[in-house]
Parts: sequence; C-alpha cells; structure tokens
Amino acid sequence: MNIKHTIKNYNPQLDLVLERIVDVPKEAIWTAWTTPELLKPWFCPLPWKTVTCEIDLRVGGIFRTVMQSPDGQEFDNVGCYLDIVPNQKLVWTNALKPDFRPAKQALANPDHPCEEFMMTAMISLETVAAGTKYTARVMHAHAEARIQHEQMGFEQGWGICLDQLVAMIKNHAH
Amino acid sequence: MNIKHTIKNYNPQLDLVLERIVDVPKEAIWTAWTTPELLKPWFCPLPWKTVTCEIDLRVGGIFRTVMQSPDGQEFDNVGCYLDIVPNQKLVWTNALKPDFRPAKQALANPDHPCEEFMMTAMISLETVAAGTKYTARVMHAHAEARIQHEQMGFEQGWGICLDQLVAMIKNHAH
Repeated sequence: MNIKHTIKNYNPQLDLVLERIVDVPKEAIWTAWTTPELLKPWFCPLPWKTVTCEIDLRVGGIFRTVMQSPDGQEFDNVGCYLDIVPNQKLVWTNALKPDFRPAKQALANPDHPCEEFMMTAMISLETVAAGTKYTARVMHAHAEARIQHEQMGFEQGWGICLDQLVAMIKNHAH
Repeated sequence: MNIKHTIKNYNPQLDLVLERIVDVPKEAIWTAWTTPELLKPWFCPLPWKTVTCEIDLRVGGIFRTVMQSPDGQEFDNVGCYLDIVPNQKLVWTNALKPDFRPAKQALANPDHPCEEFMMTAMISLETVAAGTKYTARVMHAHAEARIQHEQMGFEQGWGICLDQLVAMIKNHAH
C-alpha cells in the first residue's frame, strides 16, 4: 500500500508528500517547529541559513522565516497559520498573510527558485512503535507549481531539513 | 470617531468596510449566512440570482455560491472558511479552496467584473440596543484590488444584499 493514499483529499497532481519514520518523540518535533530559536538551526538545508523566524502560534498568526543563501541574499517568507493541533498537526499557507489577508501573487520563476509561489503546508505527527511518523504535505494550486517544486528538490530538501531537525533533537537530548 | 477605526488591523488602503445597525437579531443574521436555502434569496442584488449555495460550516470547509446574471451567465465562487464563531464572526477567503488548498490566481478584469479576485471577508455581529451592529469587512492584497472592488460598487452592493437579508428575516418572522 502506498501510504500517501491514506492522506485525506490527497491529490497526486497537486500535492507533494514526504513521509518518514523518525526515532524521536513527536513532542520534540512539535517544539522544534513552533519555537523560533529551535526552528532556525534546521529549517534550511545547510549552507543556507534561516536568519530570522517569527511565530505567532494561533490560527491567523504569522509564520515568517528569512532564509539566507550562501552568498548572502535574503528571501523573506511570510505566511499565516490555519490549523494548530499541538503535537499532531500544523497547517500554514503563504497564500494568506497574517490575519488572513490575501497575499500578493508572485509567479514561480525558474530563474529565481526561491521566489514565492503559493502553497499550503501541513505537518502531521503520529506516535508509532519506532518513534514518530512524520508527514509533510505541500498543496499547490496548479500541477505546474507542484512539478516545479518537485524539480527544485522538494523531497531531498525537506528530507535534509528533517535529518537536521532529528540531529538537533538528539544533540539536545544529550 | 470613525467606527471603522475600531476594527483590529484595519487597513484603509486595502480594506473595504460596510457597517450598519439593523433591527433584527444577530442569531437570525447568522442563520441566513450559514444555511444555503436561507442565503440564496438575498445574497445577490436582484435581478442577479444565487442559484447554488454549498456550505460546509467548519474551518477548512467549502463556501461556494453560483451567481447568475440577468442574461443567464453563471459565475462560480469557491472559497474556504477560516474562522467561525457562531452568531458573532464568520471569516472566509477565495484565496484558498476547501481544505486550505491555494486557489489558482485570476487577475481582476474590468471587462469581467465578476471574475474572481482574491479577498478575505469577515462578517461580525454584535447585539446593540437597536438590534445588531453588522460589520462586513473585505480585505484585499493590493490597493488596486480594493479600488476596483470599491468602483464595482462594494458599498452599494453589499448594502442592497443586507437590505434583502433583513427584509427576508422580517418576512419570515411574520
């Protein structure tokens, strides 16, 4: 069975999914996703850095990160939380700014792969025997946006970040 | 005092607001906004009609209306609820489809005034001595979108709909 098929309303044309079992508790992952100082160390694949993180953990609250490329360029991402179930589910979008205001549209541009395109992301956490089932789902408006995001390296990129997150949790535990 | 200034995060460049006191109870207004058969009679300024209405009254649930012009053209509007406080506050957007998927972008087009542009709408209801303070706030991404919506007749259009809504409630009460 393809586990991706168990996701509610999963749309293979429009969604990207990374699903992994990791051997850290879901509560630690939740904290790393929702605490600015614990998000910055792992949120970008190194040598990129997350230099700013702003979190207002309420529905309608801001989720903002600023990523810095190795040559010093900064990319500001502002979004809004949509659904928050502590230790279980975190949903946000960049199609809305804080307090639900629609975002200005910027088309994805292959020459500027960090240029914003609209997406909604959902992190789901579930305790399993080996630790936590971690599911990151990203929903797009167009098949073209999904394809482009896939070609930008979604699975590898989000996978590296997850590795960095897990490593951070394990280092903190010691 | 301009009462519009009491709205949280009100942005005069990006928001449109209709605020009125109406002499019907807020519970009746709430029901008319959240029950398809009670929304269709008043939701468009006549002689336009709302021929279809679909409501899944949960955060992430669908809010869909199909409006029909006097010459029979249909305009389909699909959005998603963002915040629901019964009898007090209803928030939805067309920047997201149901279950928070980003919507495809369509630029507002002066030649097709019903063509979708992105907005988030918030209806607030508050009991006052004379009945209900009714506040409809629409948030846009761009000043241009706000101006265009204003020129399309936001205040008059939403005002006529509110008159139709109040008339319906009074007729039902008799």
